[in-house]
Amino acid sequence: MVVNVTHRVISPGMFIGTEDADVISFGSGQPDLAPPFDVSKVFLNFSKFKYGKICGEDELKNKLRGYVKREFGHDVSEECIAVTNGASEALDLALRMVSLRHDRKRVLLTKPCYYSYPHLARINHMMPVYTDAKINLEDVKEKSRNCDVMIVNSPANPTGDVIEKSVLRGIQEITEDNGCLLISDEVYHSLTYRGKHYSPKGDNVITINSFSKTYSLCGYRIGYVFCQDMEFIRDICDIKAHTSMNTNLLSQRVAMECLCAPKKHVVRNREIFQRRRDYIYRRVKESGFEVEKPEGAFYILPKTGDSMRMARDLFFDHKVIVYPGEWFGCPGHVRLSFALPIDKIGEGMERICEYVAKL
Amino acid sequence: MVVNVTHRVISPGMFIGTEDADVISFGSGQPDLAPPFDVSKVFLNFSKFKYGKICGEDELKNKLRGYVKREFGHDVSEECIAVTNGASEALDLALRMVSLRHDRKRVLLTKPCYYSYPHLARINHMMPVYTDAKINLEDVKEKSRNCDVMIVNSPANPTGDVIEKSVLRGIQEITEDNGCLLISDEVYHSLTYRGKHYSPKGDNVITINSFSKTYSLCGYRIGYVFCQDMEFIRDICDIKAHTSMNTNLLSQRVAMECLCAPKKHVVRNREIFQRRRDYIYRRVKESGFEVEKPEGAFYILPKTGDSMRMARDLFFDHKVIVYPGEWFGCPGHVRLSFALPIDKIGEGMERICEYVAKL
Repeated sequence: MVVNVTHRVISPGMFIGTEDADVISFGSGQPDLAPPFDVSKVFLNFSKFKYGKICGEDELKNKLRGYVKREFGHDVSEECIAVTNGASEALDLALRMVSLRHDRKRVLLTKPCYYSYPHLARINHMMPVYTDAKINLEDVKEKSRNCDVMIVNSPANPTGDVIEKSVLRGIQEITEDNGCLLISDEVYHSLTYRGKHYSPKGDNVITINSFSKTYSLCGYRIGYVFCQDMEFIRDICDIKAHTSMNTNLLSQRVAMECLCAPKKHVVRNREIFQRRRDYIYRRVKESGFEVEKPEGAFYILPKTGDSMRMARDLFFDHKVIVYPGEWFGCPGHVRLSFALPIDKIGEGMERICEYVAKL
Repeated sequence: MVVNVTHRVISPGMFIGTEDADVISFGSGQPDLAPPFDVSKVFLNFSKFKYGKICGEDELKNKLRGYVKREFGHDVSEECIAVTNGASEALDLALRMVSLRHDRKRVLLTKPCYYSYPHLARINHMMPVYTDAKINLEDVKEKSRNCDVMIVNSPANPTGDVIEKSVLRGIQEITEDNGCLLISDEVYHSLTYRGKHYSPKGDNVITINSFSKTYSLCGYRIGYVFCQDMEFIRDICDIKAHTSMNTNLLSQRVAMECLCAPKKHVVRNREIFQRRRDYIYRRVKESGFEVEKPEGAFYILPKTGDSMRMARDLFFDHKVIVYPGEWFGCPGHVRLSFALPIDKIGEGMERICEYVAKL
């Protein structure tokens, strides 16, 4: 891993995709578990290489339609689904469309939130407006009046919170009444440790999802977006026809295979992550940090004091990657991803405790 | 192929990725030839699935560095290269960066030009300004003063023109003097039927390239961008970290294989396309159309009169896809891609002649 040691500067881009056996990484949010099948076998006799349809291959969209009905209770036609280069492109296309179509040029985000959201707002010439991640519906009502779109993310990055079904319903109704779209980013849907995942429904809802976290396929960049408004999806694909064209066919082939794989793989992964959640929560508590128990996803967000300094010191002096809360709009906290084996979590927590003991 | 027959509306998005045995397509610009190896074999024992580096895998960038030096004479470090979801994403990221950084908000394009360019300008909140595709350096000098960036494309879509080396050098010097960036889109570099491809060089040049046309891999969406300005590439990757993350790892693996494949494949493909070029040029001339002989790429642009009507009639009544010049800024012409076998070209030309005879 080549890093700028002299300046002790850290950024997410520095950590994504890099590996070093000596470093314990609570950083990048990606499963360490394997996909549900041997990917190298998927391509036997695969010989498609020409352009595919901009909005996604028919066969995959057909399967997806059944999947979103079964898993989330959404009844959408295939014309209302677009396959994208991961959830990132889906989010970007949706915001891009909103920015070109609407005038308020404001996005309502929660604080804290996934670090890409404010950047995506800026890149799309929009301004972020914030409401507390512990949702207060009155505040959402007030602020969504002046926003084109709100983004909710449950289970949430970086808090691990799961928003109550009744609250999600409240948000949907309020935003719809205010003429504000609601983007529901549900990439952690398969990692809910209490109850069943709820996916918001309504005419103003744009749902974003991905194969990355559920099927351990982050590097293949395969996600999707759907909503009730066929025209919105068509317009998104009109943009995509110029900005990236079809989503790569190889990943679409792998995604097809995922939707055909037995569901027990997803259930087993959730159990593994739940055991890790229980373990890291106990270790973090025992280490004396104030912390909430994550209800979903694979992140825990202890209160640590000077988080930027802590993240720098841990990386440069103790070979532990943690993400400072500053990146998510919650300074004084660090985010630990627990998408790594329990023995690694244990070793990482020991290094953190050593560091803290010397402060 | 499902199309809206009642309205007789056509668009590029309608044709891309669709196939129908009855239809002769001079439409979408993609090779019909196979990639240089059996793609299904590339993935034996491939087991990477976690996030890759946003800017591209080290191994691929290392190979690319040698390739652009050897093929185009560019001396760039690996930090000056980013791997993207096709040339489309490379172009979009470059324009996006320019739009966020610069104030003039104008892009200088040639007329005619690839149909995505004006859309990419609009999507990136910029205005297109046009200069004739038969370059007049005085006009470029005048207009580039008020533009942030100019896009040149040689060999060119849709004209098949190759811009002279001296003219490309002139454009580079003029734009640099005017503080205007120069994006050189060279995706057809391997299909030049006279002389050697020339790739513009200079501190203001951003080079866009792709594996799609050279290695027949359109559907895998694998392209790249490089320039002398390391900071520009870093900033592009900072955007990409939020809008699509790493380029899919499967396609990067295939791209690696391409750079290791023997060059004779590329030479043989050029010979095949040159024979098709000679054939279609003769047939188009014999059919009585005014037309220039393409010098590169796989497009020919005859003058036909009412091109929008012709494209509609040919598709709906004669099962032939041609693209109306309107999409490229040259009404009165149609673009024929000759990326299809000679017997199909012959049959398509017969259908066109039948249609024209009845007019």
